[in-house]
Amino acid sequence: MKTPYRERLPDVPAPPSFPRDPAGSTSTRAEVVSYSDERRARGRRTLAAITGTAGAEVVEKLRDIAPDLADWILDFSYGDVLSRPGLDFRTRQLATIAALTALGNAQPQLKVHVEGALKVGCRPQEIIEVILQMAVFAGFPAALNGLATAREVFTASGR
Amino acid sequence: MKTPYRERLPDVPAPPSFPRDPAGSTSTRAEVVSYSDERRARGRRTLAAITGTAGAEVVEKLRDIAPDLADWILDFSYGDVLSRPGLDFRTRQLATIAALTALGNAQPQLKVHVEGALKVGCRPQEIIEVILQMAVFAGFPAALNGLATAREVFTASGR
Amino acid sequence: MKTPYRERLPDVPAPPSFPRDPAGSTSTRAEVVSYSDERRARGRRTLAAITGTAGAEVVEKLRDIAPDLADWILDFSYGDVLSRPGLDFRTRQLATIAALTALGNAQPQLKVHVEGALKVGCRPQEIIEVILQMAVFAGFPAALNGLATAREVFTASGR
Amino acid sequence: MKTPYRERLPDVPAPPSFPRDPAGSTSTRAEVVSYSDERRARGRRTLAAITGTAGAEVVEKLRDIAPDLADWILDFSYGDVLSRPGLDFRTRQLATIAALTALGNAQPQLKVHVEGALKVGCRPQEIIEVILQMAVFAGFPAALNGLATAREVFTASGR
Amino acid sequence: MKTPYRERLPDVPAPPSFPRDPAGSTSTRAEVVSYSDERRARGRRTLAAITGTAGAEVVEKLRDIAPDLADWILDFSYGDVLSRPGLDFRTRQLATIAALTALGNAQPQLKVHVEGALKVGCRPQEIIEVILQMAVFAGFPAALNGLATAREVFTASGR
Amino acid sequence: MKTPYRERLPDVPAPPSFPRDPAGSTSTRAEVVSYSDERRARGRRTLAAITGTAGAEVVEKLRDIAPDLADWILDFSYGDVLSRPGLDFRTRQLATIAALTALGNAQPQLKVHVEGALKVGCRPQEIIEVILQMAVFAGFPAALNGLATAREVFTASGR
Repeated sequence: MKTPYRERLPDVPAPPSFPRDPAGSTSTRAEVVSYSDERRARGRRTLAAITGTAGAEVVEKLRDIAPDLADWILDFSYGDVLSRPGLDFRTRQLATIAALTALGNAQPQLKVHVEGALKVGCRPQEIIEVILQMAVFAGFPAALNGLATAREVFTASGR
Repeated sequence: MKTPYRERLPDVPAPPSFPRDPAGSTSTRAEVVSYSDERRARGRRTLAAITGTAGAEVVEKLRDIAPDLADWILDFSYGDVLSRPGLDFRTRQLATIAALTALGNAQPQLKVHVEGALKVGCRPQEIIEVILQMAVFAGFPAALNGLATAREVFTASGR
Repeated sequence: MKTPYRERLPDVPAPPSFPRDPAGSTSTRAEVVSYSDERRARGRRTLAAITGTAGAEVVEKLRDIAPDLADWILDFSYGDVLSRPGLDFRTRQLATIAALTALGNAQPQLKVHVEGALKVGCRPQEIIEVILQMAVFAGFPAALNGLATAREVFTASGR
Repeated sequence: MKTPYRERLPDVPAPPSFPRDPAGSTSTRAEVVSYSDERRARGRRTLAAITGTAGAEVVEKLRDIAPDLADWILDFSYGDVLSRPGLDFRTRQLATIAALTALGNAQPQLKVHVEGALKVGCRPQEIIEVILQMAVFAGFPAALNGLATAREVFTASGR
Repeated sequence: MKTPYRERLPDVPAPPSFPRDPAGSTSTRAEVVSYSDERRARGRRTLAAITGTAGAEVVEKLRDIAPDLADWILDFSYGDVLSRPGLDFRTRQLATIAALTALGNAQPQLKVHVEGALKVGCRPQEIIEVILQMAVFAGFPAALNGLATAREVFTASGR
Repeated sequence: MKTPYRERLPDVPAPPSFPRDPAGSTSTRAEVVSYSDERRARGRRTLAAITGTAGAEVVEKLRDIAPDLADWILDFSYGDVLSRPGLDFRTRQLATIAALTALGNAQPQLKVHVEGALKVGCRPQEIIEVILQMAVFAGFPAALNGLATAREVFTASGR
């Protein structure tokens, strides 16, 4: 196994001191316990940071039909991925908006992530810029439909 | 919160006695420790059951550039999702083949999962049936390209 | 022309005695007559088996604008493809649900096929399993939107 | 059932005198026999008209692994759909090129249909126009990749 | 640089005498001025020719949130691309309908372009033919959903 | 017409003093002349800033088959869109990488834009972060295939 990439990139922010990999050779039992609890807590914190109470509501609504999907959103999507160091929340939200606009088949999630982008400090114009850019990469219908979703969010939030 | 869906469906195989949700209120420290280790181990077992040594090689190749993606494949994709009770490996592989054939933009993964389908006991004709069915749902090009990938696997494995 | 694949796979269920290929060299006039009528009848039977009266209504609504599309659904989609031996109705419906969830742009058809899956005997939890699995292969938005459609069907059918 | 749409549109070319719907109430046994044979023959003629010998080779290569898919291509895709009156071959090929360029995941089929477009009399510039137009509707990457495929065909055919 | 393709194809309609490329070596200042004004005017004319007043309304609604996108639609989509010589408006609209039906994630734009197709002289049956053809290339759900959108337009316009 | 959005957002960087809209009521002939030339020049500068000489080569290769597409890439994609104020090059490249990874059908363009991201100062780890994030929004196959493309670029550039 080669040296992990991030070790060869000293300018990348160091991962938090809390171990992210529970199976690492230096893990002790106590650390692993903390890992699982921390993962859930980190997921909840990240979900709240990005979506306020809205995301938690979406997650809780899944409890009746697919409780494990609710957990995966907390633990994996927000706990493992979206909370990672190496990229700030604002850039992450803009990347998500780019992808969902380009895919064009996930309007409910685009709405949540436009709201999230505003919440973590993106300006409306930055969100618009990313959506407009998708006219080049995914075509004008994608950009128009993405913009319609963004407009709904901006209007609802009084921007 | 309503009663979880699976509790209202008594004919669904019970989840394994090992707790899947580390944050459940009855978890003890010892269980949580086991949870993390077991999750990784379950991921490795499932990956091996479906892909033999091929999947592990793909995962290990990620270690230099994206070690956490390697972990997520083990822990989340195989440990959390593909190892779930409630659906047998054969049906899961056929569902994956259906999806990847329909999407049509993930030939390397389709190849791995056709191999995996054979490994868990799907007959070639069953795999072909699923791919042909995609002609109805995703069009003939999707079916033709999925079939070309399946043929490669069948030929390489002497079927 | 090489030997057809299924002949080299003796464990595949034999095709029904009724000839599926009207242009085969041994076809007689009488068989061909039966072929066309049987194809339509087989399509209707399969449509009814999977969708009850709902599918037939969808098909009949097409008669004003695209009567041939109505026929193709009966004759090709259900008569030629979905009625094929080699894979049971339950697995076929789960494969369709996987594909439509992954594509994410065909909610009306996903609804019909979730209903169909219930009708041919899939348990709700099996349908949920397939949709959850799509989180791995097509992303969380695809799984969330597929689940929302499944929930509508389950609620409407009192499950 | 309402009056079929095409009957309310007297300027649409009448369907050929040969009946396309074998299950129509006025069908006689002899007509139905002719229907099935004619369908296959119409498929072969249309495939040859659009693809020359190349399409037939693709179809025959399917005989070992999926003989029924080979039949469906002849009978359904070319016999039922692409041979329909109401739209000339040139427009049909340009529509196919538009769709496959926009989808962007079916380069082998795009190649076949660019060749087919040339065969039925489309000028290279018309093909290029359709592909360029996809920059608007599906983005520049789709147009660039479609154009690369078209260029291959033009070069191979000495255009 | 090789000779531009269109020069080797003498049967392609010559581009209009007005220069489309403002940076060409023979451009004078006066021509360049005309170019920019003409581009906008050509975009407006083409938008009106295809969409009547509906398209202009869509464009104007963008002025508050993304005025540059409004300009790009006029100048690039309609002024540069859809107004090009080499393919008539009817074929261009049918190609757009093919692409949007196949993509399946842009119903508002499909609606506009079905209306546009009628406006530039396509018969309803031609539009239907293109949509039906997508059953082959993008699957039955795409064709069914495209047809539902076309039906809405036909009904609203009294066809 | 409402007040343009950006005017209500005083913290957005002002557009450059050079007028972007040639049809504005205050344009003079001289400004418009400059507009067209500047647009092309701005496109070339932006293309060079992001892609070095590689992008210009791609554009020039289009001159034989589709010279207008080459111009559109310079004038529209890079001159109008990617050079816009309101979002820095680094964020724009990461958004493009997100979209192309999620779409999964444009590997050549993803390669160009990973190279471009490095050229405008993105760190490899930031590019990897965006691609990994797509596992959540577009599935693991999309992330794996995007990562394979990024790895190629990193290896070729000695990173």
